[in-house]
Amino acid sequence: MAKKLIVLKFGGTSVANARRRKMAAQIVLGYKNKGYKIVVVVSASGDTTDELLRLAHKINPRPCEREIDMLLSTGEQISCALMALALQRQGVDAVSFTGAQGGIITDTSHTQARIIKIETERILAQLKKNKVVVIAGFQGRTEDSEITTLGRGGSDLTAVALAKALAINYCEIYSDIEGIYTADPHIVSNASKIDVIDYDEMLEMASLGAQVMQDRSLEVAKKFNVIIHVRSIFKDLRGTIIKRREKDMEEVMVRGVSFNEKEAKITICDVPDKPGLAGRIFTALSEKGINVDMIVQNISRKRITDISFTVPKSMVQRTVKIVRAISRSIGAGAVFSNVNIGRISVVGVGMRTHPGVAAKMFEALASRRINIEMISTSDISISCIIKKDKLKEALRAIHKRFDLGTKK
Amino acid sequence: MAKKLIVLKFGGTSVANARRRKMAAQIVLGYKNKGYKIVVVVSASGDTTDELLRLAHKINPRPCEREIDMLLSTGEQISCALMALALQRQGVDAVSFTGAQGGIITDTSHTQARIIKIETERILAQLKKNKVVVIAGFQGRTEDSEITTLGRGGSDLTAVALAKALAINYCEIYSDIEGIYTADPHIVSNASKIDVIDYDEMLEMASLGAQVMQDRSLEVAKKFNVIIHVRSIFKDLRGTIIKRREKDMEEVMVRGVSFNEKEAKITICDVPDKPGLAGRIFTALSEKGINVDMIVQNISRKRITDISFTVPKSMVQRTVKIVRAISRSIGAGAVFSNVNIGRISVVGVGMRTHPGVAAKMFEALASRRINIEMISTSDISISCIIKKDKLKEALRAIHKRFDLGTKK
Repeated sequence: MAKKLIVLKFGGTSVANARRRKMAAQIVLGYKNKGYKIVVVVSASGDTTDELLRLAHKINPRPCEREIDMLLSTGEQISCALMALALQRQGVDAVSFTGAQGGIITDTSHTQARIIKIETERILAQLKKNKVVVIAGFQGRTEDSEITTLGRGGSDLTAVALAKALAINYCEIYSDIEGIYTADPHIVSNASKIDVIDYDEMLEMASLGAQVMQDRSLEVAKKFNVIIHVRSIFKDLRGTIIKRREKDMEEVMVRGVSFNEKEAKITICDVPDKPGLAGRIFTALSEKGINVDMIVQNISRKRITDISFTVPKSMVQRTVKIVRAISRSIGAGAVFSNVNIGRISVVGVGMRTHPGVAAKMFEALASRRINIEMISTSDISISCIIKKDKLKEALRAIHKRFDLGTKK
Repeated sequence: MAKKLIVLKFGGTSVANARRRKMAAQIVLGYKNKGYKIVVVVSASGDTTDELLRLAHKINPRPCEREIDMLLSTGEQISCALMALALQRQGVDAVSFTGAQGGIITDTSHTQARIIKIETERILAQLKKNKVVVIAGFQGRTEDSEITTLGRGGSDLTAVALAKALAINYCEIYSDIEGIYTADPHIVSNASKIDVIDYDEMLEMASLGAQVMQDRSLEVAKKFNVIIHVRSIFKDLRGTIIKRREKDMEEVMVRGVSFNEKEAKITICDVPDKPGLAGRIFTALSEKGINVDMIVQNISRKRITDISFTVPKSMVQRTVKIVRAISRSIGAGAVFSNVNIGRISVVGVGMRTHPGVAAKMFEALASRRINIEMISTSDISISCIIKKDKLKEALRAIHKRFDLGTKK
């Protein structure tokens, strides 16, 4: 294989219409003119996937996952055929492949399949003929030729896995944003683009709310050391590089601030302070498939305690029902839920060695008289649960306190 | 394999929306309840194929046929997944297959592929598990796993070929019409439904304008003696059976009357009456890919003659250009074209043994003072070119003259 090989992934917003698709094709043409051999991965355009899902649910409220995969995979198939046509229109010799044709072999977990291996022969044969190979992202096939999909954001995963399988360990992810920012630029006007970010930081940012890359694709990139360049189809500028932490990476305490409004807080009052009761509660919830995230237990007074935790908002009603039953059985008190909360987090590998981060964050919140309801920390992040209507103010305050903005 | 196996094909109008798809699912359920094992073939719903083609041409005015097949095949894939979901909703265990998964192996002629063979193992395995197998019509794959499509109306071909491959030699083709009629019932109010029609008659009717079955699927059905039952999704009534002529088939002179407005007439005046000139004209046209249909040469007067012929309307301009050049080179006269013509035809195997058919047809036209511009006959049809604005009147007159209407 030629040394100059590149994997370019265009997301749903980059192929949402003919004009955007043409811009994407011109980016490919640019690489072609520089002598690259190119593999392009495309998502379904715009809202196609959601529309197909709506259609399916209208016909059958409990659709079988195998058929969902048959259905959804057409979105990317349409997109890759159209991209090949757009490239041909630009004079670029291109050929499109479904995931199955592209050799993306997955396990049998429909709608959430994992890539087992990529049989690259067919792709390599076309690259050898100097063709740009356009591959439908988000999909693959099982060993039995059943069509599978990789779950939300699966096209990123396709791109990362291809970059690994083709031994180039680098891919570019195009969308309508210019990179990863220190905070949502729609809210924090002077949020600055991050030049380089570590996989763990990016994973933390993503799981804490930054809507940029899918977790699994980041995990795979981290595992195989695939460098990801997140950049914009609109401007030929360097975006954000996601890679393994290296010495040359700027040493910062905090890489960025993110927030989400996806969780609700559940509080169980007056839980008797006996060993094993907390275990009973969370085992029961886990058995019912409820993902509990933050858990806080207050210091016990008079042998009773309050336990609070967060769950996804969609699970609040089920959770409250289950927890009320347990509460009765263990002799605890009332159960409350609160959906008007949000989580705000600071992320950065530097905080491991800078103990003052939490204090600085709490100060920033205190300076705006924002009350902290829960706190949780990881190795590289600190999160606070606060009132939902204070999230944006908190984001700006913390962003400023850590001096993350661009100097204007 | 169980003896009770059936192939049911639902066309684009039968799966155009959720309501129709449910009706189709209920027809399948009916057979299921009668103990049948069922293979369902579906077309893309409604105008999907045309919309995808429009999209492709917008992006690339000269789209590559391989990519067109990648694109168009998604229409049937969506349709078969949705049909499987609709069946599951009715409590019918169903599984969908793309043409490729269903083992439809074709040659490499993209957009017009021919089925080479059907590898039925995967279908049979699912039928054995008592699953209804829903197959995307109109598509297959080459030996190299390239996606192909079978051309317009290709879903009928899929159904017929499956009926042959599964050795049942019978399939039902569902649409929004109740069967084949002696004439277009929108124009001839008392047109009657034909109970049984011979393959050749149906082929002649189809090629002469009746928009019911695709030619190639009829040819394949004839070749392999697959009986086709054309019927309606709306009413549980016997429709029209298309099969090989047998003794029990009612002996009629004329089975039906059809018409089309797809042709134009070209006339070359004053062609010198020398051997070989007509040959030169039509060889030249054939070399340029122009399909000439009817040809009429008038009796020569003074060693010159007029030659008229019909071509598809879309080819008129090219044809006139070519013919004018030839006309000059052979010393012939002016070339005229006329797009305001139509063809009306009577079809029936009975006319082989009933010499009076042509006369009766001409009488019917004469009685309405409709001028016949050209005449052509085959073994089982007689066609006249007349003025386009007289077509409907001619249709009614001929239909009545041959007494084809229902008796009310």
